[in-house]
Formats: sequence, structure tokens, C-alpha cells
Amino acid sequence: MPSYTPPLRDMQFVMHELFKVTDDFKAMPRHADIDRETIDAVLEEAGKFATEVVLPLNVSGDAEGCHLDPATHVVTTPKGFKEAYAKFVAGGWPALSADPAYGGQGLPLVVNQCLNEMLTATNQAWTMYPGLTHGAYAALHAYGTDAQKEAYLRKMTSGEWTGTMCLTEPHCGTDLGLMRSKAEAQADGTYRITGTKIFISAGEHDMAGNIIHLVLARLTDSPPGIKGVSLFIVPKYNVNADGSLGSRNGIHCSRLENKMGIHANATCQIELEGAVGTLVGQPNKGMNAMFVMMNGARLGVGNQSLGLTEIAYQNALAYAKDRIQMRSLSGTKAKDKPADPIIVHPDVRKMLLTARAYAEGGRALAIFCSVLLEKEHFHPDEKVRKDSGEMLSLLTPVMKAFLTDNGWIAASGCMQVFGGHGYIKETGIEQYVRDARINMIYEGTNTVQSLDLLGRKILGNNGATLKKFGRLIGALVEEEGVNEKMAEFINPIAYLGDKMTKLTTEIGFKGFQNADEVGAAAVDYLRVAGHLVFGYFWARMAQVALREIAAGNTDPFYLAKLQTARFYFAKLFPETASLMMTARAGSRVLMDTEAALA
Amino acid sequence: MPSYTPPLRDMQFVMHELFKVTDDFKAMPRHADIDRETIDAVLEEAGKFATEVVLPLNVSGDAEGCHLDPATHVVTTPKGFKEAYAKFVAGGWPALSADPAYGGQGLPLVVNQCLNEMLTATNQAWTMYPGLTHGAYAALHAYGTDAQKEAYLRKMTSGEWTGTMCLTEPHCGTDLGLMRSKAEAQADGTYRITGTKIFISAGEHDMAGNIIHLVLARLTDSPPGIKGVSLFIVPKYNVNADGSLGSRNGIHCSRLENKMGIHANATCQIELEGAVGTLVGQPNKGMNAMFVMMNGARLGVGNQSLGLTEIAYQNALAYAKDRIQMRSLSGTKAKDKPADPIIVHPDVRKMLLTARAYAEGGRALAIFCSVLLEKEHFHPDEKVRKDSGEMLSLLTPVMKAFLTDNGWIAASGCMQVFGGHGYIKETGIEQYVRDARINMIYEGTNTVQSLDLLGRKILGNNGATLKKFGRLIGALVEEEGVNEKMAEFINPIAYLGDKMTKLTTEIGFKGFQNADEVGAAAVDYLRVAGHLVFGYFWARMAQVALREIAAGNTDPFYLAKLQTARFYFAKLFPETASLMMTARAGSRVLMDTEAALA
Repeated sequence: MPSYTPPLRDMQFVMHELFKVTDDFKAMPRHADIDRETIDAVLEEAGKFATEVVLPLNVSGDAEGCHLDPATHVVTTPKGFKEAYAKFVAGGWPALSADPAYGGQGLPLVVNQCLNEMLTATNQAWTMYPGLTHGAYAALHAYGTDAQKEAYLRKMTSGEWTGTMCLTEPHCGTDLGLMRSKAEAQADGTYRITGTKIFISAGEHDMAGNIIHLVLARLTDSPPGIKGVSLFIVPKYNVNADGSLGSRNGIHCSRLENKMGIHANATCQIELEGAVGTLVGQPNKGMNAMFVMMNGARLGVGNQSLGLTEIAYQNALAYAKDRIQMRSLSGTKAKDKPADPIIVHPDVRKMLLTARAYAEGGRALAIFCSVLLEKEHFHPDEKVRKDSGEMLSLLTPVMKAFLTDNGWIAASGCMQVFGGHGYIKETGIEQYVRDARINMIYEGTNTVQSLDLLGRKILGNNGATLKKFGRLIGALVEEEGVNEKMAEFINPIAYLGDKMTKLTTEIGFKGFQNADEVGAAAVDYLRVAGHLVFGYFWARMAQVALREIAAGNTDPFYLAKLQTARFYFAKLFPETASLMMTARAGSRVLMDTEAALA
Repeated sequence: MPSYTPPLRDMQFVMHELFKVTDDFKAMPRHADIDRETIDAVLEEAGKFATEVVLPLNVSGDAEGCHLDPATHVVTTPKGFKEAYAKFVAGGWPALSADPAYGGQGLPLVVNQCLNEMLTATNQAWTMYPGLTHGAYAALHAYGTDAQKEAYLRKMTSGEWTGTMCLTEPHCGTDLGLMRSKAEAQADGTYRITGTKIFISAGEHDMAGNIIHLVLARLTDSPPGIKGVSLFIVPKYNVNADGSLGSRNGIHCSRLENKMGIHANATCQIELEGAVGTLVGQPNKGMNAMFVMMNGARLGVGNQSLGLTEIAYQNALAYAKDRIQMRSLSGTKAKDKPADPIIVHPDVRKMLLTARAYAEGGRALAIFCSVLLEKEHFHPDEKVRKDSGEMLSLLTPVMKAFLTDNGWIAASGCMQVFGGHGYIKETGIEQYVRDARINMIYEGTNTVQSLDLLGRKILGNNGATLKKFGRLIGALVEEEGVNEKMAEFINPIAYLGDKMTKLTTEIGFKGFQNADEVGAAAVDYLRVAGHLVFGYFWARMAQVALREIAAGNTDPFYLAKLQTARFYFAKLFPETASLMMTARAGSRVLMDTEAALA
């Protein structure tokens, strides 16, 4: 059974030593009073909750799964899930970073980010029940009327009610313009919505008093395609004017998907049969609100893989120290034992350090993004808000795709450390591989993310935002350019930054003539961008570590950080050399293949 | 539900056009009379058997799994498995390439290789029941006494009895020297064997009349470690002198593992409680016979991933042509439809072509290996036998590790083509990912393979066998060096061959001072070697295709081969650039990490 030590020390390092988040918060009236001690104390409790309440349900939830009673449409979650959720609500955790206007605690988003990393590490399937609520909350908060907010946000903040995002239909996932669900306007200003939605995570369950579905559908007089899609609130139970629950709405779960992983999360097919809904935002402008949900969800998905990478690493590390098998190639290490622990083997260490470097690099990016999100929404300076929003928009597809691809590689590598025992459910490690696999798919496949990054976020504004990120690297290069000790970390990112600028121009030029050139390069390009971002954060983390060590700090944490940085630049970052080549290979080798793909 | 078209055309291409196997067979009295038509006819029937009998049981077998009755130790395989096996036996398939002296049909091993590719593609879990028999057969054939062979080989050839390999114990997998199972000599020349074995594939089932376990155990007076391990035949039912079944032996299944995949294969914990066994080969020389089983098993595991890669590719290709979603970036392709089939998207094509290139490259290597195995055993010229054995020994870890890593990448990519539908069990594609995962672990993890390749097979003889493979490349370079049309295929392998020679010398030198340098480079090195081997075969396949096209052959098969070769060299082979860098990164970044891995 896997164990988990909340990575509080590393979170503190990233928040307080690397980014000095409280300095940022001082500029925001909302958080001017927050201090490091408060943040750390909350996260310590969060770590306990994840470890004590949620972790013990992960393996059992996977084995048991969810059950649908087809007669009543009732979905039962695995044993203990409901009780854990009740404790979550009682502890006030759903309200952590929510708006105080609706009962939220108003803590910085970074606190919620770290809470969610720990929850998803210990139980991704469970965490998706409250997790999906965040997206629905954000869309309602941004686009709902005051009455809608008053009616729903308070109970979603408290966690009494959960939320969902109902987008996908059997024939349309990525291509929401093909959507068929219909909304008919009623005389009382409501709508009657009919259609079938699939892959609705946490779409039905027994954990909350009501479920607030945010449903995309098409008004009867809407234009075709994506410009005719509107967003509606469709509660499971209609809500009376006084806030009490009314009649059961015409929305129910007709099927649970049998999946590779995240068995304990109910992935529902949802039937809407004249369900009563109210419009959110303007008619035919549903995609605007959808993107509020979606951008949050994409960051959340990256965070899921960050959590899985961390827990897979911790358990593989423990196994590698415990399991004895063969002798070290360079001579016996454990003379008192019949064999050496397998951690003496270089490749076992490589698999472990890969997971560690991806987890810690991912944590830096995730926390950086959560601060950008905070600034985008709450910074008093409009320019900071705008710049932060643009940078976050650039980094969102990296966070989603790079972290989830890395999570897959890391989880599989950690499973490999266990040898044959890793393939057995008993050790718990293979579940991380199965759970991590969905993260590369949902909320926009990683291919979609790469097109979003290269096509929209980079070429779409002629590389302006990428240049802004380049300036961060430039500043670091300038700061540390003459520091010999930093050369091993600075040179690779300075070099790659240059190369990427050229590559971007080149693809932009080719793509102008043939858009398939962008599609052919995008996935490799995103991975290069991911390493540029990780390389930057790893260089900055090494900088902090080197300074602490130089100052005589003997906490082994800093040496560990430095060793992991060196490993990252020596063994993972060089992947970019090949990726630059394959990103340049052009579209012909893919598109002139009619005979091969006949 | 997945479908399958036996890749007979490509098998024929590799056997008859690329390698001209019947020319090789003419030199071997055993196969002097075999002709292309016979081989092709047998494989056509084999393809039918796989598709009609075995494929329909794959999804249901995964869902149902095996069941153990703890009271009786009886293992029940999924519905239909037993009947399919009876058909397999009735069709004479187990005997295909077996020795005619024991009832075998004596067909070339390449026929059996292609049969097994198709069986494992359509149902890896089922195929492991007869598959494990091969290893036991080979060890007995090589090391058994005439009496032992007479007693067992005939029924194993017919398939009436199956075989297993009982090596692993709870505390020892890779490190068989730690083994504890004990064998006590009896006055009658037999042994009484006691111990616990785990991870025994097909270790107990209801498909055959008897199960012949080949068990590694330690004689009571044996020296410690790997030099004190002996091999024994331990049948489930003792066999009387007249060949009839006697009493139930003291060996039984005490537990079935609950695994990530290959659910339908019974992975058994086997208890030996004074089971009666007879010694195979010399006392304390069990590892020799073990390696006969193991080398065959390693080729077989590579073949499993080849099969899975092919069927994953076929089904992802069909889905990509059928599923419509979004428009092509370069303009609408299917004007009559509301969206384009997703195969218009460059990255979808990349995922498909990756699987195709790995399947076809893997098939070339697998068939090449099966011809080497044939020559090693049956060629009249001793030098050819020796050279073939050496080359096969070099290529075995590549076949095992490179094909299984590729299979994992390919299966996951093919699943990605399905988007969210790929994560659902219903489409059948995620099963290939789960099943493919074990292939990187069992019969020696891929890390172990890399150490076998670099440490033993290459540095162990100062690169002599690698040089022999280099001469194959050299001959091709010489033959086609002035052919402009071949330059795109020849230049990369000539370049990599040179670089690899230097890299090998460098690692050899460093490894001489510190053996961890070998361990630190081995996994990356194996992948470079894999691409050198695949690059060579892809260049030769392109050569055949170019010649046919130049001669006016309009069969689109050749154009498809050429397009896939171009894709391979443009998008997959360049991975070697980064791998050369990381292979060179040295052991310090892995070993000087005590703080990080504390």
C-alpha cells in the first residue's frame, strides 16, 4: 500500500525562497496581510488531510469503482468516499481560496494549488469530485448574474453542492461546434434542454446534496457551429427562490464508463430530457465561459500529473532502498546483506531522479502559474493583470501537456523500479500509470494543447509572449552570466532560447504557406518549450541552492536540489536536441503518406 | 471491439523479398525442400486461426480473468480459452517448427515466429499458455536425457501437455543466486523439491492434461549463489514408465496475481511441497539450461510487443479514418461531411506512422533473428552456426528491450488517437497498453537487457560482434553509396555507425575505471543500438521498394514502404542525437546524488 509524505518543504522552498510569493501578495490589497506562517500552517493541515483521509481510499476506490443503479439512476461512490467528502466540507477545504463574498476564505490561490497537488497525489479519482466544482464555480463567478451567483456560489463554496462541466457529446469532443444538445426558451425566461453528454466526470454521485451542471447547448435559433453554443446552469435538483431544493430536474446519469483508470471517479453519460436550465452570460457566447472553466481545468490536469509524479517517486524511492537484488557494478555496497539494495544501480537512480526532477520542476511551474492567475485577477495594476494573463495563457498548454507527458514517463519509470512487483496491483504503483494516462487526453488532448501553444499563443501574436518569457531568461543570464558555478545551468537555456527563437520564425514562415507545417511541428515544439520553461526554473532553483550553500547553510535540502538540477540538465534537458530536429522535419513525411495510411 | 488483418503481405515481403529466406534454407538439409508457397499457405491458415479463434477471446478474457479455487488449487481460465486451445492442438499448431523426432512438423522457425506474432497480436494472454511451452521444450530438447525427451517432448510437441519456467521467488527475480528452493536427492535417483515460486506464467490452468514445470532449485550440498542452482523437471502429474499419468505431484498454485494487464493469463504463485523432480543436465549447471529457455523467451517477449504494435496500429488507423472532428489546418478535406476525419491532422498521422514504422522495423528484426536461430542450430557449416549464434546473442537484448519499449510508445500513441474513447475499455485499445507494459519487465527488465547488451555482448568481447553488424551496414553503404535515391537512408546509418563505434570505445574506457559508467550509459546505448539496427533494416527495405518502383511495379505496397521509411528516418531515428548525449553524460550525475535520493 503506497505511503505519502506531503512535500511541504519543497512547496515552501518554491513559494518563499524561489518566488517570494508574499512579496507579490503585499501589492494586492486582498492578500496584503497574508504571511508565510499562515500559508505554511494551512498546508501542513492540508497534507494531514490528504494523507490521513484521502490516501487510504485510493487503492480500495480503484478496486471497487462506482456503481450505477439503472432503475433509479443513482450512482454510488466507493466505500468511504462520501464520508471523506463530508470531512472535507466540515474542514472548510472547498472554501480555501474562494471569494469571501460567497463564504470563501479568500486565501491566495497558491494555497489551493498546493492543497490540490496533495489531494490528487493521494487520490486523483476522489479529488475530481470537488475538483470539477472549481471550474463550474469560476465560470459562474465570471459570467453569472448576481442572482445566479447568490443562488449557487455559496453552496458550491461550502462544498454542500458540487459542480460539473457538461461539454462532450458522443460525436463531438474537441470539435464542440458539432454539438447537438438543444435549449428551447420558455415563457418564464428559463430553457428546456435536451441532449446527451458523455465523459462527464463526477457527473452523478452520492456525496453532495445537489450537483450544479454547467451545460453547453444550442439555442433553437442559434447559428451553426461554435458560434451558436450557449452555456446553461442545469442543477440536478431545481433550486427554489428561498434557496431550498425543489423538484428533481430532467437530467440523469444513464451509464458509467468502464475505464483504464480513475475507476473511483464516476465518468457519466448524462441524459438531458427537457431539463430546466438558466442561461449563463450572453446567448451564443457559451465558449467564452467555457474557456474560463477549461483554462482552470487544464492547469488542474497538469497538477494531477504533478501529484502522481510525486507519490510515484516517493514509493519507488522507498522500494529501491528496501529491495535487495544483485551487487553494484562498482563493487559490493551492503556487505552485511546477501545483495545490494537496487538503488545502487545507475539506471534505477535515473528512473527515480527523472520522476524527482519532473515533480520539482512541475511544482515550480504550477506555483508560478497560480501566482500569475492571482495577479491576473487581483493585482491593482492593470498592466500587471494583463501581462500576467498573457503569460499564464502561454504557460497553460505547457502546464497541461508537458506535465502530463512527464507524469506518464515518470509513473511508468517508477513502476519499472518495482520490476515484476510493479505490475501487480498489490503494490499500488501501477494504478498511478493507469490514472496518469487520462491526463494526456481530457480537457483537450496534448496534441490540441500543442496547437494551442504554437498556433494560437505563439505564432498568433508573432511570438510576443514567448519573447516576454525569453526576457526572464535573459535577465537570469545577465545576472549570472559571469558566475562560473551557474554556467552549467545558464548555458543550456541561453543556447536553447536562441535556437527556439530561430525555430519559431522558421515554422511561422513555413506555416504561413502551409498550415500543416504548424501541426507537424507542434507536439515536438511544445516539449522543447516545456524544457525551456523547466530549464529556467531549474536554473533559478540551482541559483538559490548555490547561494544557500555558499552562505554556509548545511541543510541537505539544498544539496539535493543542486544534484537534481545537475541530473536534469545532464539527462533530461538534452532531449531538446532531437526534438529540434524532428520539429524541423516538416510536414511532407507525415502528409505524403497516402499509400502508407491507406 | 478491435479487428485484425493478418499482416501476411508484409511477412511475405520480409521473408521473401528482403531476406530471401528460402535461399538460406536451401543450404540446410532440414529445409532444403521448403518453398515459398508452403510457408505462405501455412501462414495464411495461421492468420485465420488467430483472427477467428483467438481474437474474439481477447476482450472477454481481459474482463473475466482467471480464477483459483483455493480449496482444490484448480485454476479456471476465461470462457472459451480451453476450447480455443483444443482447436489449436487439433490443428497441429504447437508442432509447427518442432523436431520431427518427437512428432514435430519441422517447418522453419520463421513460420512459427510469424504464427506467434499473429497469435500474440490477437491475444497475448492466451498465447502465453502455449508460448511458455516453447521455452520448456527448448531446455529439455537441449539438456534432457533421451529418456526425459521421450517421456515429455512428444506430448509437449502435440500440445497435449504444456510447460512452464519456474525461476522467480518472492525475494529473487533478477538475482537468481539468492534462490532458496531446495532439492533433496532420493535413493531412486529422483529429487524431492520444496519451495515457493512466484510470477509463474501459465503455471496452472485447465487447458492441458499435464503441466511440465521446469524448476530451478538448489541441491542440498550445492555451493552458494548462482553456481549452486540446478534445473529439474517437475510435472503436475507424475508420468508412469508407460507414459500414462500417475499420481498428482506435490506442486500446486496457491495464489493468482491481480495484475495491470494480461488478466487472462494465470500468473501463479507455485508451492512445491516435496514435489518429485528429475534433474535436467548436470548438477549445479541449471543456469545453462535456464539461458536456453530465457533467450527464447526474450525473443518471444519482443515478438509479443511486435504483435501488439501491429494490432494497435490497425485499429487506430481505422478509427482515424472514421472519426470526424475539426477541419484540416490546411483547408477542408471532406466537404460532404460536417468535419474532416481526424487522419488529416499531422500529429494523428505521426502517432499512426510511429506504430507502423516500429511494427514493420520490428518484424524485419524478428524474422532476421528467427533465421539466425535456424542457422545457429541447423546450418551444416560450423562457422555459420557460430557466427549466427553470436549475432543472435547480440540482437536478443535489442529484440527484447527495443521492441517492448517501442511497443509501449506505439500502443500509448494509438490509444491517444482515440482521444477520450481510447480510455474506455469498450474500444479495446487501452488493453494493448496494459498488456504491453509487462513486456518491458518480464524475462529480464529492459535495464537488465541493456547491461546484457553493452556489458556482456559488446564490451565483453571488445565490440567484435558489434563490428560484425557494422560490416553489414558497411556492405550496404558500399553497395548504395553512389545511389542518390538511397542517400537519405544510407547517410544516417553510416553516420550513426561511426558515432557509435566512438561511443563504445569511450564507454569501454570509462567503464574499465568505473563499472558504473557502463550502467549509467547502458539504457540509452541500447536505444541507439536499436535505431542502428532498425535504420539498417529500414534502409534495406527502402532499397527493395525503390528497385521495385524503378522496375515499374505499381503495387502501392512499395510506395507505402518507402513513405514509412522516410517517416522513420525523419521523425524517429533522430532520437539518437539526444541519446548519444545522455549516454555520454557519465555516472556522476546519477551516483553523486546521495542527498537527492536520501
